[in-house]
Amino acid sequence: MSERHHMTGEEFREHAHRLIDWIIEYQEERVNDLPVLSRAEPGDVRAALPTDAPSVGEPFDAMLRDVDEILLPGITHWQSPRFFGFFPANTSYPAILGELLSAGLGVQGMLWTTSPACTELETHVLDWLADMLDLPASFRSNASGGGVIEDSASSAALCAMIAARERATKQGTNRNGVDRRLVAYASSQVHSSVQKAAGICGIGKDNLRAIDVDGAFALRPDRLRESIRQDRADGATPFFVCATVGTTSSLALDPVRAIGEICREEGLWLHVDAAMAGTAALCPEHRSIHDGLDLADSYCFNPHKWMFTTFDCSCFYVADRASLIQSLSILPEYLRNRATESGAVIDYRDWQIPLGRRFRALKLWFVVRHYGVDGLRRHVRRHIELAHRLRGWIESDDRFELAAPAPLNLICFRHRNGDDTTRALLEDLNRSGAVYMTHTVLDGRFCIRVCVGQTRTETEAIDQAWAAIDRFAPPR
Amino acid sequence: MSERHHMTGEEFREHAHRLIDWIIEYQEERVNDLPVLSRAEPGDVRAALPTDAPSVGEPFDAMLRDVDEILLPGITHWQSPRFFGFFPANTSYPAILGELLSAGLGVQGMLWTTSPACTELETHVLDWLADMLDLPASFRSNASGGGVIEDSASSAALCAMIAARERATKQGTNRNGVDRRLVAYASSQVHSSVQKAAGICGIGKDNLRAIDVDGAFALRPDRLRESIRQDRADGATPFFVCATVGTTSSLALDPVRAIGEICREEGLWLHVDAAMAGTAALCPEHRSIHDGLDLADSYCFNPHKWMFTTFDCSCFYVADRASLIQSLSILPEYLRNRATESGAVIDYRDWQIPLGRRFRALKLWFVVRHYGVDGLRRHVRRHIELAHRLRGWIESDDRFELAAPAPLNLICFRHRNGDDTTRALLEDLNRSGAVYMTHTVLDGRFCIRVCVGQTRTETEAIDQAWAAIDRFAPPR
Repeated sequence: MSERHHMTGEEFREHAHRLIDWIIEYQEERVNDLPVLSRAEPGDVRAALPTDAPSVGEPFDAMLRDVDEILLPGITHWQSPRFFGFFPANTSYPAILGELLSAGLGVQGMLWTTSPACTELETHVLDWLADMLDLPASFRSNASGGGVIEDSASSAALCAMIAARERATKQGTNRNGVDRRLVAYASSQVHSSVQKAAGICGIGKDNLRAIDVDGAFALRPDRLRESIRQDRADGATPFFVCATVGTTSSLALDPVRAIGEICREEGLWLHVDAAMAGTAALCPEHRSIHDGLDLADSYCFNPHKWMFTTFDCSCFYVADRASLIQSLSILPEYLRNRATESGAVIDYRDWQIPLGRRFRALKLWFVVRHYGVDGLRRHVRRHIELAHRLRGWIESDDRFELAAPAPLNLICFRHRNGDDTTRALLEDLNRSGAVYMTHTVLDGRFCIRVCVGQTRTETEAIDQAWAAIDRFAPPR
Repeated sequence: MSERHHMTGEEFREHAHRLIDWIIEYQEERVNDLPVLSRAEPGDVRAALPTDAPSVGEPFDAMLRDVDEILLPGITHWQSPRFFGFFPANTSYPAILGELLSAGLGVQGMLWTTSPACTELETHVLDWLADMLDLPASFRSNASGGGVIEDSASSAALCAMIAARERATKQGTNRNGVDRRLVAYASSQVHSSVQKAAGICGIGKDNLRAIDVDGAFALRPDRLRESIRQDRADGATPFFVCATVGTTSSLALDPVRAIGEICREEGLWLHVDAAMAGTAALCPEHRSIHDGLDLADSYCFNPHKWMFTTFDCSCFYVADRASLIQSLSILPEYLRNRATESGAVIDYRDWQIPLGRRFRALKLWFVVRHYGVDGLRRHVRRHIELAHRLRGWIESDDRFELAAPAPLNLICFRHRNGDDTTRALLEDLNRSGAVYMTHTVLDGRFCIRVCVGQTRTETEAIDQAWAAIDRFAPPR
């Protein structure tokens, strides 16, 4: 390799083999020993990097050495079996192979014609998933709806809100801008992305109502109904509700059916955000979380959280694809083509914010085929079982109390001595490197969140987590 | 492998090696022989896929066979040396290795604390690129600004427009929704993403003015000034201008300095979209395209187009990062952390639409280090030279005329017999499989666009392209 030349196939093969070995060693050995939360201080990584880009090309060895020496100490290990923070962003070897193939093909799926397979495989796999989760028939591509892969649930919520805004204003906002007070609703526990979407799309965060929740942190339909009534009385235009199936704080399950009935009566768009918990619906015994989904206009769950598919892969479904497409479509001359004009194809650029798009369906297809539906179910059940194992210990120890119901794979708990003790416990746990957990506030009190969903989390990791909690927690 | 189990490291190594070989063969051999534009008809790919997801896991061999037999005929080969359509989305082996490592690490870079290296490497490499392109000092992270990787120039334009909207309304839109008639400006040649952004952010597409262009399809500053004056007289609030350095239709270069001076006088946000052409500024002899960039508030160019970095990798710079962050930041309890509160770190979730983010800086870092600045320059110069080789033939053949100046790597031309002949020529070219080119309309006339930027495009591919044009074009 000289700086004149591209890397040759032979060089690529050699480097790729080393990198594959590096990944295997990382995923199976090193990640088990490294502190889960990076101990880097602000600026540590940059201080070790040269100020200027190299004029002349460097060998790959030098880069891989820097990965080990400079980057690795700055990594928080989301793929550690003892990563329990936020929601997981788990992965798997089949998904990594899918990413590799996607990069190797390097195609753009913005239009059907720019790579028909990129679009059709995506539509097909999203129909598979609709079956696998037993989603309503309307979300399938052979009905009026269909699915698409977005980068994240944030973008899915934004697209849903825009489609709702346009339905409510008959495309008036798209043409002329927001010209009336549109009001959206979600529980006080809704993910911050819905507030962000309200800011982005010109509705304004103050026009997103935070509806009260019940003792299990689920949206209260009675309060939603009241709030809509009040807004109409004030001359505003209610247009959108986001129900959450598995809130970020506590995995609370909003009552989708009751909310959906209100949305139907009031003519509001219902978006259901099941970003993490949706995966549980692979298992028939958990499908009740989606009860009422037939009343929703859109739905989203993220295989990149809890279904072994490397980020980014958020599955977004709409019941009426025309309303989404009409809200996001623009067809300049340079994108016109015969297939689009025939109306016989899907152009996914009209289902998302950006124009360009990667071939993300490959990794999802590889994951579903590698595990099979039965295999995926087994792993989901195992994570829930492991979470309940930890829940059992916490419940039976009188130092702790659960802060929320924990039917699935998220446990929220606190020390009975109060916030300061719980906060100190969390800091000790994370500083130890043994685990990484994050926090939330429920009922005004500080809680530790433990979400069980990393691909390799098994009994040993749960037992280590409990051992660490037990060791660091002071007596009552 | 049974459906119970994850793919083992040994299995992963074996499959990955096969896939690496597959990619090398694809990139270096097969892609040269396959028709560039897929010949699939709508529904062909789906018809070959099973209706239901498998219950039980399948071997990787079966998936790779389906890639060959089902997907490959549905691929339009963006990595063919004879792909001249749209703008390129080129790639390189170092970038593919970067994607592989990113997938293997599987970290989230939404907050500094969720992987400090993911954030710091990104800031660092974007500072490198600011040097490499000789961007204004204000865009560097050690000044008031900084860079971030977005998925696309569309998202960059949307973020810029939102920051501009909030600066103009003192965060009023973010809070209360759009409550006055905000007006944005761009040339009639601007990319459709700017119209889309105006729709998304609640301004309305009708409030994006399409400013007239001159004979070279560049925005006319006098017309911009008039339009702003007229809007102010009508009681509207001008707030945003997008200047394009290299339009999609013809690679026209808007006069950034003249536009920037108007924006300064009028207090408007200036965003400069150099999605493809920006890469040319690696070479000092092409830096004049950016003259006046010191007057811009934000800037974007895409290494995923013409700098060998697999999509997605769009570099977005702002001169005042506070205005961007303030417009997109929301800090719910579950994302609070010590590093964020210290103010000493960048949390890139506040620089983009989604929350989650991949470790995209790795591929960019690998590309810059593999090629070195000199190597990248050499390849950019080579592409321009090759484009001019083709331009020379077209100019010297009296059947054709150039439809626009072609100083860089895009040639727009038409047959002198008129639109029907040019259109038929393009269809013949693409149907032959020898090349893939796309079209635009300039001065009301249909033109063929030939953009030279795929990684492996060399003299042979250009000569083949000319041979095909020569063969299919009828005499005058």
